Order: sequence, then structure tokens, then C-alpha cells
Amino acid sequence: MGIKCLIIAAGNGSRLLQKGESKPLIPILGIPLIERVIRSAMEAGTDEFYVVVGWQGDRVRDFLEQLAERLSIRITPLVNEDWKKDNGLSMLKARDFLQDPFLLLMADHLFDPELVRALMTHSLPDGEVALVVDSNINNPLIDINDVTRVKVKNGKICNIGKRMTDFNGFDTGIFLCSPAVFDVLEQNRDKDGDTTLSGAIRVLAEKGRAKAISSNSFWIDVDDPPAFKRAENALLDRLRDKPTDGPVSRYLNRPLSVMFSRHLVKLNITPNQISMFSFLCSLVAAGLFVAGGYIFLLIGGVLAQFASIIDGCDGEVARLKYQKSNFGGWFDAVLDRYADAFLLIGLTWHLLAMEMNSWVLFIGFMAIIGSFMLSYTADKYDNLMRSRIKNGGGAGLRMGRDVRVFLIFLGAATNMVLPVLVIIAIVMNVETMRRVRVAYVN
Amino acid sequence: MGIKCLIIAAGNGSRLLQKGESKPLIPILGIPLIERVIRSAMEAGTDEFYVVVGWQGDRVRDFLEQLAERLSIRITPLVNEDWKKDNGLSMLKARDFLQDPFLLLMADHLFDPELVRALMTHSLPDGEVALVVDSNINNPLIDINDVTRVKVKNGKICNIGKRMTDFNGFDTGIFLCSPAVFDVLEQNRDKDGDTTLSGAIRVLAEKGRAKAISSNSFWIDVDDPPAFKRAENALLDRLRDKPTDGPVSRYLNRPLSVMFSRHLVKLNITPNQISMFSFLCSLVAAGLFVAGGYIFLLIGGVLAQFASIIDGCDGEVARLKYQKSNFGGWFDAVLDRYADAFLLIGLTWHLLAMEMNSWVLFIGFMAIIGSFMLSYTADKYDNLMRSRIKNGGGAGLRMGRDVRVFLIFLGAATNMVLPVLVIIAIVMNVETMRRVRVAYVN
Repeated sequence: MGIKCLIIAAGNGSRLLQKGESKPLIPILGIPLIERVIRSAMEAGTDEFYVVVGWQGDRVRDFLEQLAERLSIRITPLVNEDWKKDNGLSMLKARDFLQDPFLLLMADHLFDPELVRALMTHSLPDGEVALVVDSNINNPLIDINDVTRVKVKNGKICNIGKRMTDFNGFDTGIFLCSPAVFDVLEQNRDKDGDTTLSGAIRVLAEKGRAKAISSNSFWIDVDDPPAFKRAENALLDRLRDKPTDGPVSRYLNRPLSVMFSRHLVKLNITPNQISMFSFLCSLVAAGLFVAGGYIFLLIGGVLAQFASIIDGCDGEVARLKYQKSNFGGWFDAVLDRYADAFLLIGLTWHLLAMEMNSWVLFIGFMAIIGSFMLSYTADKYDNLMRSRIKNGGGAGLRMGRDVRVFLIFLGAATNMVLPVLVIIAIVMNVETMRRVRVAYVN
Repeated sequence: MGIKCLIIAAGNGSRLLQKGESKPLIPILGIPLIERVIRSAMEAGTDEFYVVVGWQGDRVRDFLEQLAERLSIRITPLVNEDWKKDNGLSMLKARDFLQDPFLLLMADHLFDPELVRALMTHSLPDGEVALVVDSNINNPLIDINDVTRVKVKNGKICNIGKRMTDFNGFDTGIFLCSPAVFDVLEQNRDKDGDTTLSGAIRVLAEKGRAKAISSNSFWIDVDDPPAFKRAENALLDRLRDKPTDGPVSRYLNRPLSVMFSRHLVKLNITPNQISMFSFLCSLVAAGLFVAGGYIFLLIGGVLAQFASIIDGCDGEVARLKYQKSNFGGWFDAVLDRYADAFLLIGLTWHLLAMEMNSWVLFIGFMAIIGSFMLSYTADKYDNLMRSRIKNGGGAGLRMGRDVRVFLIFLGAATNMVLPVLVIIAIVMNVETMRRVRVAYVN
């Protein structure tokens, strides 16, 4: 790709301002707005940035310098002293650096990288611009009184502006521009003093040179405190549609873990530390099971379920703070296997302490084996299931860690440990055998 | 690629003949010679074959027809009634079918597919031939009194023949030919009645049109009973250099399992059935541990080690009989995990039956967990190690199933079950933690 990216970060964001802060640097869920925009653009495939700064330019520049080093990318800051005026003037600061079609983003518009990726595959004819237009008129993330409205017809922009009543989409602030846009901005400025980007787009639209790329993907203009709140919630909501989540995860653990993650991202805690904390909680829970007596059993069960909920936070924080790593996912999986084993050993021990019984020992062993085997066979099975789902087959039962720990919690809370161990031993081993069968047939 | 392959299978192989059998159909380690040649060529990337048959042509043709259907490839049999004469006449039978450069193989020459793959990437100028020449003058698989000798200089063949004394390589019988070879064969026949392929190659060599591709890879001419024996041993030896084998596997299990596989390939037994049999042996061994008493313990230990040896045969038979499958490998791994767990449960049970002791229970649990964790973490670790070895780093300790079962066998045989459980519990879990550390650092 190698396409350059221009980001307008010159406004002072007066409506969101918190005690003289610079708007691009305001952290949302632990990461400054401008970093989120740059990270999303990087995920879409760009790695050379030009950022026009104005209000508190020095602080933003310092931050960008550190960010460029941290992410090993090129960021060139450009200064617009006239940041109080319209955004077209900020754009013109970059004209000498951009001789080819370039990506244009706003520092306060967050978006799904998918959206930019689609735009970048678009081949732009000379002299044209393309704007990603949100075609969802009822998008709840939009402030209808503030958003720039767009009228699209046959894939082209007919009109663009804030007060139009005839519109069928919204300006996402995500553009692919040919350098011709600079000429139009200058002509507008010299002719009637219009220095807005919208003005330039309007002129290009009249000539049929402004394309509209329709999209329904996530984006949001973080313009004022309500929008900021909406953006936070939207980013958190996006964590909840993880397709590999089991039923307990989906309806119980994930909503709660997202609630925790909202606060965890603001602390200086790494995802691996969260994995470790969750593991230690499970270990203590197993110790409480061994200690004996219903009270300890109950507390241990609650603690085990709590650990299972916290176990979702490591991945969530990693996604929100761009800290995902192969090691992190693997480390979490290894700790989970140990945690599962210790919880089941704890329960077995709890029963054996009351009465040494060969059947209890056997059932405990089988529960541990089954639980391990289910994790051991999961990868292969998931790959098979993915190809089957593609071919229209059913997905079958999802029996993951979420269900296992929830059963342990239920068994401890109701003091029915043996039935739960029997259920785990049977279900986990039968499911493993079913997977072998499915793998064999396919 | 789409390159066509001509195979000469017309001779009667009188020196190998067993009661009127057809030489191409003689099974070596369970698979007929001609099928091995075709399978190896397929692995190298060809799927359209022309096979010249002669002696017992009908039986060979029937077999090829079934083979083509079984492997979903195209095999066209061509008949040479003059099979008693030289091989050049067999080649000429194919001239109408081969207008482009083609691969030429002998039905009784087995080879490493790598060798043909290298030849096929060679771009052959019009009118030339290229021969794979074995440059290992001391190759122990060669019958120096029967092999065709070659003199190579600057990548070209200077001379070729059976009785030359000045030579530096051997004719492997693996050629890439342009159709011009047919013209030379006809000219030779009409001029002085020479109808050998070697004669045609000699003429091309004189014109500087016979290239030599040097190689050290495996090949063998299966011409008489001693060569047949050598070929069997060579195919079996090749099973023994599996890079993922641990120390016990390399020096104890693999030599013995290869010995078993030599006979197993001749029976109608699938690799999955062997996996299952090995698993059942482990299960019986675990049952003997539970039964109690030193005699049962000893028999169980020996049976467990026997199962571990047999566990190598499934993969070996699969490789020898071209029955490798993703499911097979995965099924074997799943059964191994269950077998490991049952053996360790059996040992723990054996100790608990003598004296109920929390420490014994704990150590048994930890041995089972550690053994599972080591398998669970193996994939990721192997990938890391592979990249580290590439970078010149050390490979570290290999602690696989072979070592685990061997420890179990030693513990049972010496009646020192507790120390062995302690060793397994410590070594397996420490090694897992070491892997986590290595994965973290890398």
C-alpha cells in the first residue's frame, strides 16, 4: 500500500476541554484519541503520517514524537498557527508533502480499521476525492445536530453540509483525496473566503468528482462529553461480540468483565498481570476447597467464579490498549489449564477428606482428564467447525472454561460437589469423544 | 507444473522373479514397486503418467487401472510386445503422447521425491536431456557391477556406460527429456541397431546436450534379491531420522518399532488400528498397576513400555504405506494423552491402596497435570525452538512421551513408584514453566 495519511489535529476541542488539555491527547479508555486514530489507520495498512497540530501544538508534537518511536512509524508534525479558523487551512499546511492520493482522517473521529481498509482498496481517479459515508440514518452514535450530512446518489456525493434537510448519509470524516483537493481549497479561499473542507468537497461534488463509499461499520465523532461517553460505551460493547465465547461467558462473565475492564484500562496494569491475578484467585479458591467445611467451600466457589470473570479482562484490556500478543494469549491459556486442574483437585480433595472412597478418586481423576482433553482438542475442533459452519452445518455445543468453572461454582454454592464432578467427568470426556468422531467423519 | 511422466515397466525382472510374478507388482514393505515410483513422482508434483508395460502386461495394466482410480490420477498404459529387447524400444512406444519435456522414470528405481522435485524446477533447453547423477561414489546402496556409470564434467555428461573405468557418478534412471530423445533413438536403431537409452544419451552427450544434475539423495535400483533387501532396509532406516524424537525414542523405541513395522506393513492393519492397540495396552497396564502387588506392577510397567514402542508403529506404517492423515496424527495424540493420564492414575492408585496419604495424592495429581501441560505447551514451544535453531540457538531438553513412559516403566520395574512420580511431577511442571519463560523472553 504505502499510502500516506494526513490527520487534522489542530482544533482545541473546546466542547470537550478538561482544564486546558489538548483534545487529541485526551485519553479514552486509557489511550489518547490521536493514538487510537493512528493505531486504527496502522491496522488498515498505513505507516507514514502527517499530523497538523495547532492548539497546544508543542505538547501534541512531543507526544507524537514518542509515539513514532514506540511504534516504529514515521509521523511528521505540521503546525497551523491559524488553528482557530477552518480546517481547510490546516489541510493546506500539508500540500507540499502530499503529491499522491492520500488518506485524510480527523484526530477526534474513531473508527473500525475495516472501514479505512475498504477505502484504501478503492482506486481513485485523478482529481477526485472519496468519502466514507455512513448510510445508517438511525445510527445511535451520531449527534444529529452536529454531524455533517451528505446526500448521495449513484455512488456520488450531490450535496454536503450541516443544515441540509434532504440527506441520506453522514460524513464520517474519513477521506481518500487526490492532491487536486488542495487547488480547490485555495480557489475557494481566494474567491469567497470559504476555508472549510466541506466547501471544497461541495465544489468537487458539483463537478461529479466526489465519490461516496457507503458503510455501516463503527465510527464516532468524539466532540463533546455525551459523545465521549457514547464512544467509551461503543468501544466496550465491541468487546462483547467475541464469537468464541460460550454461553456463560456471553450472558454472565463478559458483561461483568467489560465493566471491570472499563476501569482497569485507566490503571498501569498489563494484561499478563491480570491473567496472573485471576490465576492466583483460582489457586486460593482451590485452597479453600481443600480447607473443608461448607463456608470455605462457598467462598471458594464464589472466588473461582470471580476469577473466571476477571479472566476475560486480560484479553479485553489487551484489545483496548493495543497490547495483544501471541505470548499473552498462550500464557493465559497455560494458566487457565493449571487453574482448572487445581480447582478440580480441590473439589476432589474436599470430598476425599470427608470419606476416602475409590469412586470419588476415580471421578475426580476423570473430571481432570476430561477438562484437559477438552482444551487439548479445542484447536483442531474449532478449525473443523469453522469449515463446517462455512458449509452451512451446525456449530454444535460449546463447552469451554466458562461452563466448567460455572459448574464448579454451582457445585460449591449448593454443596453438591460430587454430582458436579460426575457431570464434569462425563460431559467433558463424552464431548472429547464426540469431537474425535466429528474429526474422523470430516 | 503439469509435466507428464513416462515410466518404463516392460522388463520381466528375471533376477528378482518369484514364481512368475510381474516385477513392477512385487510388493516392497507392503506396496508394489510401481506404486512407490508413482507415489513418489506424485509427491514431487506430477499427476499424469504413461507406463510402458510388457511382460505380464495385462496384470500390470489391471493394477494401474485400479491405482489411477484410487489416487484420482491419469495413467495410460502402453504395450511393448518387444519387452525382451532393449529399453529404448519401450520408450519409442510413448513418442506420440509426449510433445513437451517429460519426466522419465524406471519402474524398479525407488527414490526420494526431493530428487525429482529438483529436476522439475530445471528449465530444459530444446533438444536436451538432463539426468540426475548420484555423485556419491561410495553409496552403499549401489551394486557397482550392475549400475550404469557416468562421467560428468562442468555439469555435462561426457560418457555413460556399464564398463567405463573413468567415471565420477552413477545413472539414477531419473531423466528430464525433451522429445528430441525419440529422434536420436530412431537414428541409432536405423544406423547400427543400438536400441538402448544409454546409447541415445551417449549420442546427445557427444553433442553437449546431456546435462547432469548432481544429487546425494536416496535412490536405489531394485534389481535382484540383495538389492531388494538393501531397499527394504533403506526405506526402514529413513523412518529413524525423525527430528522430533526424544532420546528414549531415538535409541530404544524407534529401532524396535521399525523392526515391528517391517512386518506390520505386510498385514492389512491401518495406522489408526495400531494407535488403538497401543492405547489398549496402556489401559491394561494401568489396570495392572491398580491391581496391586509387585508382579502386576512389573508386568504393567513392561506392557506400558511395549505400548510406547508400538506407539511409534502407527506413524511408521502410515509413512511406508502412504496412509498419513491429519486425523491420524491427531487421533494418536488424543489417545496418548488419555494413556499417559491412565498410567499415572494407575501408579497413584497403586500407592494409595497401600497407604492413604495426602502427599501421595498431591504428587499423583501434579504428575498428571505436569504431563498434560507438557503436551499442551509442546506445539507453541516447538515453533519457537524451530525459529531459535534457525538463529543458531540451542535446542534445549526434549521431554516427551518417550521419556515419561520410560520413567514409568523404570519405576514399576524397580518397585520405586513414589520417587518416579515425584520426578515426573517436578520435571514436567518445571519444564512447562521453563517453556513459558522461553516463550516470554522470545
